[in-house]
Amino acid sequence: MNCKITGTGSYIPNVITKNADFDQHEFYNLDGSNFPHDNETTIRKFKAITGIEERRYIDENLNTSDIAVIASQKAIESSGIDPETLDYIIVAHNYGDVKSNSNQSDTVPSLATRVKSHLRIKNPKCVGYDLLFGCPGWIEGMIHAQAFIKAGMAKKCLVIGAEALSRVVDKHDRDSMIFSDGAGAVIVETTSDKESGILSHASATFSFQESEYIYFGKSNSTEASEDVRYIKMHGRKIYEFALTNVPNAMKECLEESGKTIKDLKKIFIHQANEKMDHAIINRFYKLHGLTAPEDVMPMTIHELGNSSVATVPTLFDLVTRGKIEGQKLEKGDIVLFASVGAGMNVNAITYEI
Amino acid sequence: MNCKITGTGSYIPNVITKNADFDQHEFYNLDGSNFPHDNETTIRKFKAITGIEERRYIDENLNTSDIAVIASQKAIESSGIDPETLDYIIVAHNYGDVKSNSNQSDTVPSLATRVKSHLRIKNPKCVGYDLLFGCPGWIEGMIHAQAFIKAGMAKKCLVIGAEALSRVVDKHDRDSMIFSDGAGAVIVETTSDKESGILSHASATFSFQESEYIYFGKSNSTEASEDVRYIKMHGRKIYEFALTNVPNAMKECLEESGKTIKDLKKIFIHQANEKMDHAIINRFYKLHGLTAPEDVMPMTIHELGNSSVATVPTLFDLVTRGKIEGQKLEKGDIVLFASVGAGMNVNAITYEI
Repeated sequence: MNCKITGTGSYIPNVITKNADFDQHEFYNLDGSNFPHDNETTIRKFKAITGIEERRYIDENLNTSDIAVIASQKAIESSGIDPETLDYIIVAHNYGDVKSNSNQSDTVPSLATRVKSHLRIKNPKCVGYDLLFGCPGWIEGMIHAQAFIKAGMAKKCLVIGAEALSRVVDKHDRDSMIFSDGAGAVIVETTSDKESGILSHASATFSFQESEYIYFGKSNSTEASEDVRYIKMHGRKIYEFALTNVPNAMKECLEESGKTIKDLKKIFIHQANEKMDHAIINRFYKLHGLTAPEDVMPMTIHELGNSSVATVPTLFDLVTRGKIEGQKLEKGDIVLFASVGAGMNVNAITYEI
Repeated sequence: MNCKITGTGSYIPNVITKNADFDQHEFYNLDGSNFPHDNETTIRKFKAITGIEERRYIDENLNTSDIAVIASQKAIESSGIDPETLDYIIVAHNYGDVKSNSNQSDTVPSLATRVKSHLRIKNPKCVGYDLLFGCPGWIEGMIHAQAFIKAGMAKKCLVIGAEALSRVVDKHDRDSMIFSDGAGAVIVETTSDKESGILSHASATFSFQESEYIYFGKSNSTEASEDVRYIKMHGRKIYEFALTNVPNAMKECLEESGKTIKDLKKIFIHQANEKMDHAIINRFYKLHGLTAPEDVMPMTIHELGNSSVATVPTLFDLVTRGKIEGQKLEKGDIVLFASVGAGMNVNAITYEI
């Protein structure tokens, strides 16, 4: 028995915000001090490192659970399953539904309940819950689905990653330019085909020193309210952390699958920073004495930014649907999913298409 | 292979708030209308139905994750395990850390990361995540632990339920008197003893019509800010819902275990309303043509109120430690865990001590 993705879907929000749209923002450092250069330079440097040119935000009237529903509908449609046969709906997110112009996270009922309710699924045995695991939440949800299937507790799961980081960014923080909104979803089913689907996984939580690398903190502006908090990160520490721990997790995961790096066709990696992603992939291949193939890592960061848990399933959906130029998947391809984020959590899955 | 609880712990907060302490509150109905009688009558009727005389709140300087740590330390100590050998830390909650005098939920990093960090666990393979599933979250976490163990993905899990509802109550809502704070935790391990531990489980999400029975809404006072939201519920609908669906889930779960109702020694049921709990148990026994035995249902609601996910593990810890008069457990006893809450989610576990 194995676990295979039989349908994919994603929602790419309508509002396009370009780097130039941040030109009038008043940016400060984490300690409240001024930036050493003007916004034009800040934005140029930002783009050179992260690769991000624009990002997507959801419309004012939408919430995270709404876009989770849209991505789910597409995944259900592409899988062809009857949604009433779903055993689990797993929604990975980190901030719940945060309404436009609010700073309160709404997580009761769970987003999984909201998704199930909007999908009009009646079967009470379809169990919905939310999973908080930082950006790697969607991959972790896949690992949960695998656990339920292997334990004989489920046959079909809907695994969603949805986030609206635009609702928790500090406009006085340069890092706000990284974050975006989105939703991706897949249907995971048992398969009798032993040679395909999830081949192995790796998962880890680094919290001994790293728990506050990504956190909820006050605005960088000393004039802003002390009481309102936003998504914050220590970028340099995360970069160094990821460069060591993500390639190791990927290597361990691939080895456990019994496949070799020469079998590997694609790496679907969390899109947080283009330079970091390239450095991770290069380190990963270097650990095997190889150089990374040029087209091994499909990228969406230039147009979509970092949409947290939504990034990897959205990327996978786009490549599956042939919507990223020069990128395609074929039956039998070996791919890796990998992510890193708040926790600090790191995970990976080796998967056969 | 089975899954057995090898250690328990709980944290009962210090601040005791008695019913009389609500005497000066200005209560309104959900629609903002005035109550038909004075507070003394309101409180007397409240106590007659819910059984609640007092409830516990955490100190101002504490957060949900802090009390989760204390309960976990006790569970680890009583199990005797080395915390470095834990495969999973699962924290069930619904609102994250809400600081005193704040209305923002802090869930990044996850509460599981915070717990792991405070427990000073170094092993990165100990994976921590948060589970949102309404009040039945702790029982659902037990079901997750079982899935990981049965799938061969874990041998030892720390499963925690922690909540500080005092941080999300509307003081103009009579239902605020129901809610309290607390944390309960257990260590779950694989066991070679096939006849003990988790024997069966049942889990369900009712969202077709029920998703908003418990929700996040504005204050009952028309003079309060429209923007700040609190825990809210439609008590009458929940009562009717629970009275049908909880006994059915318990019956189904018990039947699946192969045990009969005559084997059943104790029922650890979510403590939300004493009258409702008695009605559920009576209905459950009536479904089997029997009358509920007098001491089958240990209760903590009189002194502890409804601490959401913390209620069932706290109750189990207190009985295990012989701290509830007239209640004790012996090796071989068959017990049921059962809960109902936001989602609306319902679940149950048949367990052999």
